[in-house]
Amino acid sequence: MKIAIYGYGNLGRGVECAAQQNDDVELVGVFTRRDPKDLKTLFGTPVYSVDDILDFKDKVDVLIICGGSATDLPKMTPALACDFNVVDSFDTHAKIPEHFEIVDAAAYANETTALISCGWDPGMFSLNRLYASAILPDGKDYTFWGRGVSQGHSDAIRRIDGVVDARQYTVPVAETLQSVRDGNTPELTTRQKHIRECYVVAEEGANLQEIEQKIKTMPNYFADYDTTVTFISMEEMKRDHSEIPHGGVVIRTGKTGVNSCHSNTIEYSLKLDSNPEFTASALVAFARAVYRMHERGTIGCLTPFDVAPADLSPLSGAELRAIML
Amino acid sequence: MKIAIYGYGNLGRGVECAAQQNDDVELVGVFTRRDPKDLKTLFGTPVYSVDDILDFKDKVDVLIICGGSATDLPKMTPALACDFNVVDSFDTHAKIPEHFEIVDAAAYANETTALISCGWDPGMFSLNRLYASAILPDGKDYTFWGRGVSQGHSDAIRRIDGVVDARQYTVPVAETLQSVRDGNTPELTTRQKHIRECYVVAEEGANLQEIEQKIKTMPNYFADYDTTVTFISMEEMKRDHSEIPHGGVVIRTGKTGVNSCHSNTIEYSLKLDSNPEFTASALVAFARAVYRMHERGTIGCLTPFDVAPADLSPLSGAELRAIML
Repeated sequence: MKIAIYGYGNLGRGVECAAQQNDDVELVGVFTRRDPKDLKTLFGTPVYSVDDILDFKDKVDVLIICGGSATDLPKMTPALACDFNVVDSFDTHAKIPEHFEIVDAAAYANETTALISCGWDPGMFSLNRLYASAILPDGKDYTFWGRGVSQGHSDAIRRIDGVVDARQYTVPVAETLQSVRDGNTPELTTRQKHIRECYVVAEEGANLQEIEQKIKTMPNYFADYDTTVTFISMEEMKRDHSEIPHGGVVIRTGKTGVNSCHSNTIEYSLKLDSNPEFTASALVAFARAVYRMHERGTIGCLTPFDVAPADLSPLSGAELRAIML
Repeated sequence: MKIAIYGYGNLGRGVECAAQQNDDVELVGVFTRRDPKDLKTLFGTPVYSVDDILDFKDKVDVLIICGGSATDLPKMTPALACDFNVVDSFDTHAKIPEHFEIVDAAAYANETTALISCGWDPGMFSLNRLYASAILPDGKDYTFWGRGVSQGHSDAIRRIDGVVDARQYTVPVAETLQSVRDGNTPELTTRQKHIRECYVVAEEGANLQEIEQKIKTMPNYFADYDTTVTFISMEEMKRDHSEIPHGGVVIRTGKTGVNSCHSNTIEYSLKLDSNPEFTASALVAFARAVYRMHERGTIGCLTPFDVAPADLSPLSGAELRAIML
């Protein structure tokens, strides 16, 4: 299977790493909006300009689009789906139905196969919500995120006057998580589920109290949470907060039996040293499924919900049944 | 979707309960090898003799076969797949490839759809091994079972002279589980992974020391484990050990990034008050997928690996994308 990477940030580099781990994957190249001469890839993968992408129409089986969900993917994915089978990690949950429709129209019209919203949430967490709810319909599920870096919240802090750099960690409230893990099914407020920990480097002479106040009262981002703000030096930021870990938990407890007498709890959790590298690894596995499904004649837009798990593995059906079932 | 239950033990009763929770499921009847007059179902579901099953050929969309893996399913599933779409919970891991081939031949020849080895292991645990290994190929996975009742091991104890009743719990070794959960990837012996706890009711005057010795040295079942034997009264057995709980954990840790510098851990765990009711709930969800896949023209034998998750849910693709992705 020949893949290519479109966009070379953290996610694109993660796909380049993941490609090394999969023997059936050949990485054709990296496509960038920058000048290809200025970009050096981790493993010496050839770099091309996005302007030349159509020259590769018959040389790439699946194009993995590594752009941002806010502005890149809504344009890139439908445009590229006109000429390539594509996979993206579109993660703006509220806009998934709209993105799906637009990509589906482009892929159908051009007889390509597209898969959107791949990664861990949306992605593996979504799959676990689906499996758990299908098996235990009389139940309730909970998703907790963290401990991990939220890029969007970190960016929001950086936009405050006097802030030089910032890192925000989302952390599940330990007692709430334990209660849900024990099979309880409470109604929870935003504040009861997650804490927001902020590490901030301020300009010299900045009003720290004012910055802290602005963070804690910021609507949507922080006002509804218990938020802690810790001021640190740039040196500490680089030393202690240079990684991009994340993770979280999906838990569903459901009742079974006569008079719902039995309680059953399903839990799926991730502890990721590298959020983008894990997402990238998922993109490569789902690219394999897109390639196979396209070969079998599937066209249009898909999500992880539409992929039979066997299509994700390099092993054959017989091998999977013998060693993994 | 019209389903029927073939075999009415713990699993069959679980399917009857699960059918009540799914609005799109109509339970046509229970088929039994016993005299139907002697069998009273939990929810008043009509009971028929297995001898009359062919009268229902066009009245049942999917037949859920609730027999044992040792002797029932190897015969029942291929035979019934000649006339019905079927689902079973065949769980003798080593014999899955053989069972698959036989059922596949029967289903193909008769243009029916069969799904085998559904439940949690094989089943949901297998799916999690597959997803995790496809996403993190450079890693290692571990499956721990318990704390839960092992029926086979309980039966083995009951066959010892002087034993009236017995219940065996499989329990993961806590320190080993914690080590794997922390991202370590040790090589483990059988003894390092699980403990076997036995609760035994002995005949009056039986030689307890001898019984304990026979249990602890029983090859395959107990000799390779740290085994504890506790003698209890029949009253205690009924009071404290009448339920059939089970569960366990699948954990995979895999490396990503340049020089495998990042570690990522995926964990899937189940805590089940009722092992058979959870398995039954999975059978009903997968029966829905079998029904839909058969309607779309799929024939032959499948496993949970071959089912796109969207087919398990009563919700439409658009609904799933809007609320669960």
